[in-house]
Amino acid sequence: MSDLKLGIPKGTRDFSPSEMVRRNFIFDTLKKIFQKYGYLPIETPAMENITTLTGKYGDEGDQLIFKILNSRIHESKNKDLLKEEFEKSLEHSKNSEILTEKALRYDLTVPFARYVVQHRNDITFPFKRYQMQPVWRADRPQKGRYREFYQCDVDVIGSKSLLNEVELLQIIDEVFNEKNLNVPVLIKLNNRKILSGIAEVIGAADKIIDITVAIDKLDKIGLVKVNEELRQKNVSEEAISTLQPIIKLSGSLDEKMIALKYVLASSIIGLEGISEIQKVFKTINTLNIKTDVEFDVTLARGLNYYTGAIFEVKAKDVEIGSICGGGRYDDLTGIFGMKDVSGVGVSFGADRIYDVMLQTNKFPAEAATLTKLMFVNFGDNEEKYCLGLLAEIRSNGISAEIYPDQTKMKKQLDYANNKGIAYVALVGENEINENLITLKNMNTGEQKKLSVAEVIQELNEN
Amino acid sequence: MSDLKLGIPKGTRDFSPSEMVRRNFIFDTLKKIFQKYGYLPIETPAMENITTLTGKYGDEGDQLIFKILNSRIHESKNKDLLKEEFEKSLEHSKNSEILTEKALRYDLTVPFARYVVQHRNDITFPFKRYQMQPVWRADRPQKGRYREFYQCDVDVIGSKSLLNEVELLQIIDEVFNEKNLNVPVLIKLNNRKILSGIAEVIGAADKIIDITVAIDKLDKIGLVKVNEELRQKNVSEEAISTLQPIIKLSGSLDEKMIALKYVLASSIIGLEGISEIQKVFKTINTLNIKTDVEFDVTLARGLNYYTGAIFEVKAKDVEIGSICGGGRYDDLTGIFGMKDVSGVGVSFGADRIYDVMLQTNKFPAEAATLTKLMFVNFGDNEEKYCLGLLAEIRSNGISAEIYPDQTKMKKQLDYANNKGIAYVALVGENEINENLITLKNMNTGEQKKLSVAEVIQELNEN
Repeated sequence: MSDLKLGIPKGTRDFSPSEMVRRNFIFDTLKKIFQKYGYLPIETPAMENITTLTGKYGDEGDQLIFKILNSRIHESKNKDLLKEEFEKSLEHSKNSEILTEKALRYDLTVPFARYVVQHRNDITFPFKRYQMQPVWRADRPQKGRYREFYQCDVDVIGSKSLLNEVELLQIIDEVFNEKNLNVPVLIKLNNRKILSGIAEVIGAADKIIDITVAIDKLDKIGLVKVNEELRQKNVSEEAISTLQPIIKLSGSLDEKMIALKYVLASSIIGLEGISEIQKVFKTINTLNIKTDVEFDVTLARGLNYYTGAIFEVKAKDVEIGSICGGGRYDDLTGIFGMKDVSGVGVSFGADRIYDVMLQTNKFPAEAATLTKLMFVNFGDNEEKYCLGLLAEIRSNGISAEIYPDQTKMKKQLDYANNKGIAYVALVGENEINENLITLKNMNTGEQKKLSVAEVIQELNEN
Repeated sequence: MSDLKLGIPKGTRDFSPSEMVRRNFIFDTLKKIFQKYGYLPIETPAMENITTLTGKYGDEGDQLIFKILNSRIHESKNKDLLKEEFEKSLEHSKNSEILTEKALRYDLTVPFARYVVQHRNDITFPFKRYQMQPVWRADRPQKGRYREFYQCDVDVIGSKSLLNEVELLQIIDEVFNEKNLNVPVLIKLNNRKILSGIAEVIGAADKIIDITVAIDKLDKIGLVKVNEELRQKNVSEEAISTLQPIIKLSGSLDEKMIALKYVLASSIIGLEGISEIQKVFKTINTLNIKTDVEFDVTLARGLNYYTGAIFEVKAKDVEIGSICGGGRYDDLTGIFGMKDVSGVGVSFGADRIYDVMLQTNKFPAEAATLTKLMFVNFGDNEEKYCLGLLAEIRSNGISAEIYPDQTKMKKQLDYANNKGIAYVALVGENEINENLITLKNMNTGEQKKLSVAEVIQELNEN
């Protein structure tokens, strides 16, 4: 065996049939629900021009973009020029265009923005799209963090209506309460405009991340230490004093809004944020939303990016970070020169949802296979006879197979067992003469002789 | 607008919602049928270690593999070593490991072989798997040839039974005769052992490709010119004389087999090939196969690779090359040190099937959208009322949406039209008072007032 070097790049994964069946269950659930709300699928290429991607994710993000080596650089005639370019690229810590012009997508958001701008004349706005494709990041791999993983994004672009925010909350609610998915979650909601308002009234826009991080620790470290941390981050005493009602924000949504209105009374944008939050909560209260939705003034994910609503979804039963998140962005397509197109969207982390479902035993046992019936192969005559039965059973939409080789019964039954096939059909000389099938339930061991029609009925019912 | 540089790498594509809905229809049909025959999905990472891929596709193939630039090469301390390596790589026309260690998969076959060997202790053989993922090739892009395209592979590995060949023919037959796919095709079948037998009896194993290419031209250029071409390729007069019954092969399958048996009488492997072909045809004749299956002694695709059956599927109504092909390989996993594992499989070209269906108008008009109903947005009160109706309609599995903005009626109806939404719901003050919905059929223009239950019934029936 020369398989010592066998393997796959670190941070990537193979998916076995039983993993795939479960993953597809998650993807199919998301698709079904997205489509029910009028979202349509698009796909973009795995590779984009590097110029499309760089500069969109910050310096740190840029470092994590996988770049594709130009093909045929060796065929380039001018080797001296190549060497010179390579040396230059080493000095300047960036890749030369001679080496690389294409890169693997880092997320689905920037390719979506590029798509919208490039195809804007063919798109009917508001454009409701979903996209489920892998993305690649040259991150240091660790538990739960991969270099290749799927994103499942659902966005509407070209509409400022808060109905879209409500709809996304409905979608999140429906996904996690789906009968067979059933992952208890908490939805956290904030609005960037409230955070902007806070920055405005305390006159410290650059401190807003430090402030939300500090406030978020209230439960853990208490008021005194939160204020201490704010001081350490050079937030002024006056600002800390102004912030007190926000740090101590508690009670019902209405009580929180009253406290916020008091602090943000002088900020137009802050009051706008409060009004938006109130409208969204008022609307979802009229709908049959099963999930707890909580206003959280410390929620600030992707702050540079979002301009209105901010969403985050946490699994209640598993410590795993957020399993869905997003928000409104007023200028996503601006990076490609198309101004004033507002959008809002969320991204579902299929890999994390899978991990949560696995850890909380949410996958049904039968989800690990798709094949329902296997015919044992007894020999040439039986094989030929069974092929006809198989065709009839399959034509009723039942997944079925015949063991292809005429080998020992035990080996054939082991195969069915390992593959999780629930029923085995035994058709020997007697069964052929009687025009019947001996059907064995692999779970109970029970055997009965049935006609084809009865077998089809039994399999369709179980 | 600074969108002058907007675009995607040549040879790659964006897929719009209407294209996606149609492509998904093809993928879903393939999946459904593969699963019905007991095949289960796997997925492998987009990137493999370069050592896994190189040397498997010939020198030409190796040149077409997209390689990933190592991340953080700039952080490497020893810049002199890097430069030296780069120069060496230029001299030797191959990439240095310092530049690249990973590459994008070129097909699904080699990753599948790697998967089988790597996970052989977890796999129950025979292993029936399907895999539908994109592959990347740095080919010169041209009409119908892309740098990123999907392969849809279905293989069984670990079984020598000819039942597998029969099953793949059944799958091909079922796919192309699927009610809504319905692409008339011709399946061509050959056996590598027959070609080996021919090479054996004329003592010219290295000429077998030249010979099949020449014989294939019989219909076009006639017997005299075929023989001439064989002479030009340095096939001996004696060999050409021996080949005459094969070049002129015609008539029924039985007649062809008799002629072949005569020529290959002295070749054990040749006779084995004939026997296999006869067994496969005998079995499919007992099954209800609708597609024409034709024996074609000139079929030789991927000769270095296949060891038994060779399949190729051609669309009858469109000139487009093969839309599906494959064969048996006795030593696929041998490249990774796992010997004597025989497999057989075919690959469906989803992109080409799409092109054929498009050119022959096989896509139903309604395939271009998924949303069935849109509520017009008349204002705050109506909006709130409609959200309740929407929830009820969606809970019946119907894809429906409300126009999110309160804008001009015409704009809203244009949106529904452009998106191909078949029905529009008009709910104003009157409808609210009457507890009814005015349902407008966007194709006929017909309007009627219905209860929610009646709307649901109407939409479910159409």
